[in-house]
Amino acid sequence: MAGNTFGNIFKLTTFGESHGAAIGGVLDGCPSGISLDLDAVQHELDRRKPGQSAIVTQRKEPDTVEFFSGIFEGKTTGTPIGFAIRNTNQKSHDYSHIKDSYRPSHADYVYDKKYGFRDYRGGGRSSARETASRVVAGAIAKQFLSGVKINAFVSQVGTLKLDKAYQELDFSQIESNPVRCPDPEMAAQMEAYIKDIRKEGDTVGGVVTCVVQNVPVGLGEPVFDKLHAELGKAMLSINAVKGFEYGSGFEGVAMKGSEHNDAFNTDGSTKTNNSGGIQGGISNGMDIYFNVAFKPVATIIQAYETIDREGNKVQTKGKGRHDPCVVPRAVPIVEAMTALVLADYTLLDRTIRRKI
Amino acid sequence: MAGNTFGNIFKLTTFGESHGAAIGGVLDGCPSGISLDLDAVQHELDRRKPGQSAIVTQRKEPDTVEFFSGIFEGKTTGTPIGFAIRNTNQKSHDYSHIKDSYRPSHADYVYDKKYGFRDYRGGGRSSARETASRVVAGAIAKQFLSGVKINAFVSQVGTLKLDKAYQELDFSQIESNPVRCPDPEMAAQMEAYIKDIRKEGDTVGGVVTCVVQNVPVGLGEPVFDKLHAELGKAMLSINAVKGFEYGSGFEGVAMKGSEHNDAFNTDGSTKTNNSGGIQGGISNGMDIYFNVAFKPVATIIQAYETIDREGNKVQTKGKGRHDPCVVPRAVPIVEAMTALVLADYTLLDRTIRRKI
Amino acid sequence: MAGNTFGNIFKLTTFGESHGAAIGGVLDGCPSGISLDLDAVQHELDRRKPGQSAIVTQRKEPDTVEFFSGIFEGKTTGTPIGFAIRNTNQKSHDYSHIKDSYRPSHADYVYDKKYGFRDYRGGGRSSARETASRVVAGAIAKQFLSGVKINAFVSQVGTLKLDKAYQELDFSQIESNPVRCPDPEMAAQMEAYIKDIRKEGDTVGGVVTCVVQNVPVGLGEPVFDKLHAELGKAMLSINAVKGFEYGSGFEGVAMKGSEHNDAFNTDGSTKTNNSGGIQGGISNGMDIYFNVAFKPVATIIQAYETIDREGNKVQTKGKGRHDPCVVPRAVPIVEAMTALVLADYTLLDRTIRRKI
Amino acid sequence: MAGNTFGNIFKLTTFGESHGAAIGGVLDGCPSGISLDLDAVQHELDRRKPGQSAIVTQRKEPDTVEFFSGIFEGKTTGTPIGFAIRNTNQKSHDYSHIKDSYRPSHADYVYDKKYGFRDYRGGGRSSARETASRVVAGAIAKQFLSGVKINAFVSQVGTLKLDKAYQELDFSQIESNPVRCPDPEMAAQMEAYIKDIRKEGDTVGGVVTCVVQNVPVGLGEPVFDKLHAELGKAMLSINAVKGFEYGSGFEGVAMKGSEHNDAFNTDGSTKTNNSGGIQGGISNGMDIYFNVAFKPVATIIQAYETIDREGNKVQTKGKGRHDPCVVPRAVPIVEAMTALVLADYTLLDRTIRRKI
Repeated sequence: MAGNTFGNIFKLTTFGESHGAAIGGVLDGCPSGISLDLDAVQHELDRRKPGQSAIVTQRKEPDTVEFFSGIFEGKTTGTPIGFAIRNTNQKSHDYSHIKDSYRPSHADYVYDKKYGFRDYRGGGRSSARETASRVVAGAIAKQFLSGVKINAFVSQVGTLKLDKAYQELDFSQIESNPVRCPDPEMAAQMEAYIKDIRKEGDTVGGVVTCVVQNVPVGLGEPVFDKLHAELGKAMLSINAVKGFEYGSGFEGVAMKGSEHNDAFNTDGSTKTNNSGGIQGGISNGMDIYFNVAFKPVATIIQAYETIDREGNKVQTKGKGRHDPCVVPRAVPIVEAMTALVLADYTLLDRTIRRKI
Repeated sequence: MAGNTFGNIFKLTTFGESHGAAIGGVLDGCPSGISLDLDAVQHELDRRKPGQSAIVTQRKEPDTVEFFSGIFEGKTTGTPIGFAIRNTNQKSHDYSHIKDSYRPSHADYVYDKKYGFRDYRGGGRSSARETASRVVAGAIAKQFLSGVKINAFVSQVGTLKLDKAYQELDFSQIESNPVRCPDPEMAAQMEAYIKDIRKEGDTVGGVVTCVVQNVPVGLGEPVFDKLHAELGKAMLSINAVKGFEYGSGFEGVAMKGSEHNDAFNTDGSTKTNNSGGIQGGISNGMDIYFNVAFKPVATIIQAYETIDREGNKVQTKGKGRHDPCVVPRAVPIVEAMTALVLADYTLLDRTIRRKI
Repeated sequence: MAGNTFGNIFKLTTFGESHGAAIGGVLDGCPSGISLDLDAVQHELDRRKPGQSAIVTQRKEPDTVEFFSGIFEGKTTGTPIGFAIRNTNQKSHDYSHIKDSYRPSHADYVYDKKYGFRDYRGGGRSSARETASRVVAGAIAKQFLSGVKINAFVSQVGTLKLDKAYQELDFSQIESNPVRCPDPEMAAQMEAYIKDIRKEGDTVGGVVTCVVQNVPVGLGEPVFDKLHAELGKAMLSINAVKGFEYGSGFEGVAMKGSEHNDAFNTDGSTKTNNSGGIQGGISNGMDIYFNVAFKPVATIIQAYETIDREGNKVQTKGKGRHDPCVVPRAVPIVEAMTALVLADYTLLDRTIRRKI
Repeated sequence: MAGNTFGNIFKLTTFGESHGAAIGGVLDGCPSGISLDLDAVQHELDRRKPGQSAIVTQRKEPDTVEFFSGIFEGKTTGTPIGFAIRNTNQKSHDYSHIKDSYRPSHADYVYDKKYGFRDYRGGGRSSARETASRVVAGAIAKQFLSGVKINAFVSQVGTLKLDKAYQELDFSQIESNPVRCPDPEMAAQMEAYIKDIRKEGDTVGGVVTCVVQNVPVGLGEPVFDKLHAELGKAMLSINAVKGFEYGSGFEGVAMKGSEHNDAFNTDGSTKTNNSGGIQGGISNGMDIYFNVAFKPVATIIQAYETIDREGNKVQTKGKGRHDPCVVPRAVPIVEAMTALVLADYTLLDRTIRRKI
C-alpha cells in the first residue's frame, strides 16, 4: 500500500534507509519444510555488494544478513522469515555538501515535497541499497523454485549491444567477468568502456536480459495480474529502470501476425517463441525472456548547478563512491525479483487450479 | 489475487467473458460527491467499441453500459459503482471451427492447461472485450481527476513511426482520423497501410504513446509501488502489449548521466524531462509520457496449421470479424488504465502525506 | 479497502443500495470445474427473502439472481462470477417521512457525516438488503465445500433461550418452523413472542448459533488471521450483530485451566471441545461452534422524537414493512458468511502447507 | 495472507518465534512528521513484559526494542519502521519434556498437522510472545492518534466480575494495582484469587474491557469492514481470546428496540449509548466500549495425560514459568490492537471522504 510490500502470498516487506541502523525485511508466505542453503543466500548478496570489482562503486560494505525467524533445524517453518543487514560503512559526511540541495534526477526533491523532510544521507529510502533485501528474499525464492532456471546477464552498456540470441550464449560465462556479459569479447569492450566513463566522472546506462527456463505451464493470472505484467512491475520497481519488454517486445510491433504467431508442435510447445513463454498472461512452458532498460546513474563526479530547498541556485560537484554503470550489480537484483514473482505465482496457481 | 482486480483504494474488479451474458465490473473506493457525466462515460466506450471505422473489426456491438449502484441524484455516493454491458452480438458459431483446437499465440492452450476446460467462444475471459469494463471505470477516474489531462495517441503502426516529439503535436487532432494519430499526414499513411494489411487477411502491431499533463507533485509510492511501475503493470495488463517504456526509455540506455540528468529550474521544474515526470517513483510535476508496444493481433484470416486438445495436427483458417491492427481502439484503453492508476495513487497519497 | 470486499482468495465484492436498480456482486477466486446447482443457490436466497412467513417483514421481493459470467456448461470456469438481483419492490415513498431526519440507531447520521449526503431510501448501502449478495456467494461456497456441514439456527429470542447443547438438537428440524429453532417447543414460544412484539410495533434481539462439522484439520492462519478471528469479523459485519463467541466463549472465562483444557484421544480428537474446534487459530478437526448476538431491529412502528440534518427536533413515527426480529432471516446469512470464510481458508491453506 | 500482517494502510507485519533469535516487525504506512516518544513505546512494552509482578509469569525478559529505520531526527519519515526485540531468556530445556508430545489446548497439534514439524520450544510462532511486537506498533499508533483516549482494564477474573458501568470508574487507578482493575476493592479480591490459583498450579480466565474516548465521527467502512468487525477481529487475534462484544453486546439481545435505540440530542450525540459509539460500522462520536473474553491459560503446573506425535499416550506435568491468569498482561495488548485499528481507519477515512 505504502509501497514497501511485494507479492501476494510469497510476500516480501522491506524496511530501511541507506544510512540508518539497518535494512532488512520480512518474507512471509514461504511454505514450510524447504531446506535452506544460507550460504547460497549470502552468495547472492555478494554478487550485488559494492566493491566487488573495479567497475562498480568502491564502497566497502560486507552486507552480511542475519536471520531472526522462520527457520528451524535448517528448514523453513511456514512462519515469516525476518532478517536484517547492518549498515556499517555509512559515510554520511560524504553527503553533507548536498544537505540542503536537491540532486538532479534523484528522488530528493519529490521526497521532500511528499513527506516534508530531507533525509540527505545518500538517498535514504530511495537508495538502491534497499535492493539488498530483495536479493535475500529472491535467493530464498530461488531455492523454493527448484527446477526453474533463472539467468540474467548484461546485454547492453551504452551503445555496446550484444546482438546474439540468448540461445547462442553460454550462461556459465556470465560470472566470468565483472560486467556479467556471457560473451567474453563483448564483455571486454563493455568493461573498457565503463572504465573510461568512470575516468570522466560520468555514468552510462545499460540493459539486463533475463531468461527463465523450465517454467511449468499455467503460471500467471488473467486480466490485471498477467505474469508479464507483474514481471514488468517488478523490474520497473528496481532503481533506475526505464523500460521493460518481453518476447518480441518493441521489435514485435513491426511484424505481421502471420510472422509473429508461434505455431504449435504436437506436444504443445511452439516452433518459434515470439510470445516469450507467456500467452494471455499465463506461462506456456517455453522459455520466458525479457529486457530491462537502466538509465545512466544520476550521480556524476562532475560540477553541476542545482537548487536548494528554498529554490536558490547552488553550484556543487558530485563526490563519494558511486557506480559508473549500474547493470553489472543489477543482474542479481533482476534475478531476485524474477524469482519472487515466480514463487508468488506458483503459490497463487495452487489456489485456483482445478486439479488440486 | 485471481487477477480480476486493479488498484488499491480506487479499485476496479471486472467480470465477464466475451460470449457470456454480460461483462461488467465494480468500481469501489471512488470518493463521494463527484458529479458524474454519464454521457462522457458512454463516449469513451464508443471510442473503444467495434465497428466504428473501416480499419477496425466490423462486429456491431452497441456496448451500452448500465449502472446498478453508487450514484444518487447524479453524484457518486462513496459506495461501490456496479455496472454491466450486455453481450448482444455474440456469434458463437463463428468460433465452432476452433472448438477443439488451440489458436496459435492465443490463450486457448494455457487456459485449458490451467483451468481444465476450453471456452472456445472467442477467447472467453482472455478476450480484449474485457477492456470495455476498464474504459467505463477509467472514464469515471478521469472525472475524478479533474485538472489532469491524459492524451494517448498512435505513434507507430508496423514500421511507420511518428518521429516527432509530443510537444510538436496537436492533441486536438487525435480524434480527427480513425487511426488516432495526431499527425494528419502520418495518419493517412497508417490508415492506408492498415487497409492493405486487412486485405491480406493479416495483422500488424503498433505503439501507443500517452502524455499526462498537470499531474501534481508527489503521486507515487516508494520502492515496489513506484508510479511508473504501476503504470507499466497497467499497460502490460492490456491484451497484446509486449513492452513499456517511460521518459527516455530504452533510448536513455545509450546516454551518459551528464546528458540524461534533468537540471532544475528555480521553481522545481526541470529544464529537460528525460525522467518522464517521475523521479524515484514519485511524480515531480513535469509531464509524464510513456510508450506502449502492441504485438500484431493473433487472429489472421489465413489458413494455418495448429493442434487440437489431443495434440493432433489440424488444418484451419481464421474467420470472423477481427481487428487488423489493435492500436486505434487501444488508445482509450491506455487512457483508461492511466486514469485508474492516477486516481488510485491520488487516494494513496492522501493517506501518508504529512500535511493532512 | 472501502469495505465492500470479503476474503483473500475466494473473494466476494458486493455492490448495491436497497433502493437502487440492483444489488449484486462479483465472486472471484472460485476454482474451476465445480458443478454448480443454481437451484440450490436460489433456495438459499429464498430462505433469506422478505415475506416468507408471518414473523418477518411483509415486503414482497422475489430476489431472483441473474448470473453474468464465470459459469460455462454448468461448471465454474475459474473466472469471476458476476451476478445481480434486481430491486423490484422499492417503495421509496415509505421513506419520504424520514427524508430529512436521522433515524435513531441507524446509520443515517454517520453516513451523512462521512459521505456528505443523505440517501434516505431505506438505508441505502447500509441496508441489510446487501446481505442477499452474500447469500448468493455463500451458497456457491457451500457447494465448493462439499463434505463440510454448516448448520445455523436460532438459539435465543429476547429472553427465551434454548438451553440445550447442540448435540441434543435435531438439525433437520431447523427449517420446520418459521423461527428456525430446531427445538419445536421453544420454537413455538419464540414464534408467539415475536408475534406479540410485532403487535406492539416493537422489536427484539436474538442469538444465532452455528455448528460446522467435518472441517479438516489445518484450516486457519496464525497470528492475525486466526480462523475464529476471521469468523468473528464475518459475523460482526452482518447488520445488527453486537457480539461473537466461539467454543466456551464468555462462559469459559469462569473456568479453570484444568477444567477447560481439552484432553486428547489417541487419534488426535479431543474428549471435550471447549476449544470450539480451533486451537491457536487453526481447525483441529472437532466441531466448530459459535454464537452471534443480534440487537433488536432499530426500526420500530411507534412514535419517537429525533433530529433532522440541521439539528432540529422532529416528531415522527416508524412505518413501512419491517422485521420484528431479525434472527430467523439471519440464519442463512450466518451460514453464508461461514461458508465464505471456510472456502477462503481452504484456498489459503493450499498455498502454504508443506504437503503440496 | 499468511496471517502475519494486520491493517490496510497503517499496517503491521510481525515475525519471530518465542525461542528464535528475535521477534519484531515492520510498521508500514505511518505518516511522516510525527514526533515519536520512544520512551513511551518502551513503557508500553514494560506493561506487557513478564516478571513485572507476583501474579504474572516470573520469566525475566528485558524486552528492549531496537528500531532499524523509519525515524529520522526524532520524527517518522513515512517509510517503514523496522524493529526487533531480542529473545534473551530462552530456556528451551524447559520444554524438552514436551518435545514429542502435544500439549492439550495449545497449538502444538494443529501446527504439526499443518506445517509438518514440531517446534517444541514454547509454542514457537503461536506463543503470546509475538504480541510484544504488536505493543510496539500500537504504542506508535497511540502517538499518531493524539487526542483519542484508549483505556483498557480488567473487569472480570474467573467469577469475580466488576459490576459497575465504566463511567463510575477512575481510569487513573488502572495502573495502581498489578491486576489492572480500576476498582481497588475488586482489584484486591482478584489479586488474592489469582495467587490462590497459582498455588494450585492452575489458571483462570478473565475479561478485559476497553473504552475509547474522543473518537471523531466517521471512522469505519461500510459492509464488510465495519469498525466493530475489525475491532472484533483484532481482539480475537490475541492469544486465548474466546469472545468479543461491543455496546450492549450479548445483553442487548434481551432488550426491545424501543429500549435499545439511542435517541439523539440536537448536537448529534445520543442520550444513551447502547450502540457503543458505532452505528452501521461507523463511529458516531460517542464512547466506543467493548469486552474481550480470555480463556484460562492452557499451561497448568499439574500432572496430565496427553499424546505424542505417534498417537501414544504420555503422562507428563506442566513446568516452567507461566501466567496463572493472562488478563493483567493482556491490557496493553488490547490497547495496542485498538490503537492499530483506529490508526488504520483514520487513514482509510482520509481516502474516501468527500471533504478532502
